[in-house]
Amino acid sequence: MHTTVKGRSTTEDDITAEVLRRFEGTPDVRLREIVFALVRHLHGFVKDVNLTEAEWFSAIQFLTGTGQLCDDKRQEFILLSDTLGVSMVVDLMNHRKPEGATESTVFGPFHREGAREMPPGGNIAPRDDGGSPMMISGRVLDLSGRPIAGARLDVWQADSSGLYDSQYADRDELHMRGLFRTDSDGRYLVRTVRPVHYAIPNDGPVGQMLRATNRHPWRPAHVHFVVSADGFEPVTTHIFDDTDPYLESDTVFAVKDSLICHFVRHDARDDASQRLAIEPPFYTVDFDFVLKPRA
Amino acid sequence: MHTTVKGRSTTEDDITAEVLRRFEGTPDVRLREIVFALVRHLHGFVKDVNLTEAEWFSAIQFLTGTGQLCDDKRQEFILLSDTLGVSMVVDLMNHRKPEGATESTVFGPFHREGAREMPPGGNIAPRDDGGSPMMISGRVLDLSGRPIAGARLDVWQADSSGLYDSQYADRDELHMRGLFRTDSDGRYLVRTVRPVHYAIPNDGPVGQMLRATNRHPWRPAHVHFVVSADGFEPVTTHIFDDTDPYLESDTVFAVKDSLICHFVRHDARDDASQRLAIEPPFYTVDFDFVLKPRA
Repeated sequence: MHTTVKGRSTTEDDITAEVLRRFEGTPDVRLREIVFALVRHLHGFVKDVNLTEAEWFSAIQFLTGTGQLCDDKRQEFILLSDTLGVSMVVDLMNHRKPEGATESTVFGPFHREGAREMPPGGNIAPRDDGGSPMMISGRVLDLSGRPIAGARLDVWQADSSGLYDSQYADRDELHMRGLFRTDSDGRYLVRTVRPVHYAIPNDGPVGQMLRATNRHPWRPAHVHFVVSADGFEPVTTHIFDDTDPYLESDTVFAVKDSLICHFVRHDARDDASQRLAIEPPFYTVDFDFVLKPRA
Repeated sequence: MHTTVKGRSTTEDDITAEVLRRFEGTPDVRLREIVFALVRHLHGFVKDVNLTEAEWFSAIQFLTGTGQLCDDKRQEFILLSDTLGVSMVVDLMNHRKPEGATESTVFGPFHREGAREMPPGGNIAPRDDGGSPMMISGRVLDLSGRPIAGARLDVWQADSSGLYDSQYADRDELHMRGLFRTDSDGRYLVRTVRPVHYAIPNDGPVGQMLRATNRHPWRPAHVHFVVSADGFEPVTTHIFDDTDPYLESDTVFAVKDSLICHFVRHDARDDASQRLAIEPPFYTVDFDFVLKPRA
């Protein structure tokens, strides 16, 4: 025999209301809005699929493993957000650009602080990188096409092996990263190597998810930029290679038409090789960044 | 000037469809169902609240911190699932018990493998615990009320300081845990100390979430059980103290009416003290576990 007394009893149909009630005292209105939506969607997801206890436990293990893999060089949760398309939903909602402004795309998990300031034409590639030299040039402009002097370009990309510096266990120094400034005509010039398509890190939970769902881990070749200037909204974006086979199936959904560029091959000495003081073969690409004024 | 070519272009309204299309090749039908619902709800959540980039990054940091805090002794993601009510939704959906079977509740983050087998009346509390001795007795029965001999009870609880063994940085040995078997009459007997209400670990992301939402971290006093027997579905459950002030506001939503018990205080020598060979003051509680046959 055991004695029971009145307490609360809940079913899966009323627990959501009870959980929301407990969050009602959230002082910050915005946080309350977010928590309410999170609880509704989380519970809705679990109910929609009739999640079993074993599946719940697999999810706990998956999320735990994702967090445990993160450190100062690896960000597996950003990778998960990217591969589930969540990062691009956030990007697309937050950057409805006026006509003409450069479109943004995902930030990705590979940005690092501390890149060196470089002069125009500075080379972000290490000497031992075997890739094809490439010069990226262009201007930073406002919506009226006026040049922005002193704009800052934070540039980073994978090396010719398809790896970012942080992916080398045995290297601490930064490479394939640089900070550039536009001149009085709004011009910038970055020397690098032609980017290659690469597989995102797939030795962790995200890779496990991609394999289990028959998805490939490839990203089309690209160079990352964050371009900022006083009085303007910064833009986080990439430029992509128009010949890349993964443009249509970027595993993080980051390609936008307006960011696809043509990388011009130069096989002989020409005006460009002379002007840029570079020996063929090499590539050039020209891309203007257009910033909208800060709101 | 830059050259653009045809590629894909997406808006926040069509990216969800594109992400789902990429998951279409998932070979396992159940996994595909889960991933589809996950993508729909994740994207729906982000759109419903118009999540900003700064909020997205806070969420990334929150999830990262939650995973990084997990180790072989701490499971912050289970705690997060519990405090968001997700664990109870899973529990309630998966255990629609026939009338009479013992109800289940959350497993929680504190179970550990390797508890000792103990004889009937074995004491799971360490000698230096200053709490009131308590004897938990009862039977394990089938739905017709027939005793189940040899049923296994995996019992664990917090000590009188409100902490589980795994929460002590300087202790490796297990305490407040034991494995018991029912006798031929289906009877079990566990010696412990009266459980106290306690605050869940709140020095991590879950504590941060509770504080930001004005929620308290308390759980009503309880003892954990997993009861199993050949041919029956195991039940993961608690018994609760009917005098506890947190029965109505358990921070993990785990209280069910049928699991609330009366802990009887014995202040003088009586039949119970004689039968159980225990000196007053002490507590007794009687609780029968009823298992349903394995499906």
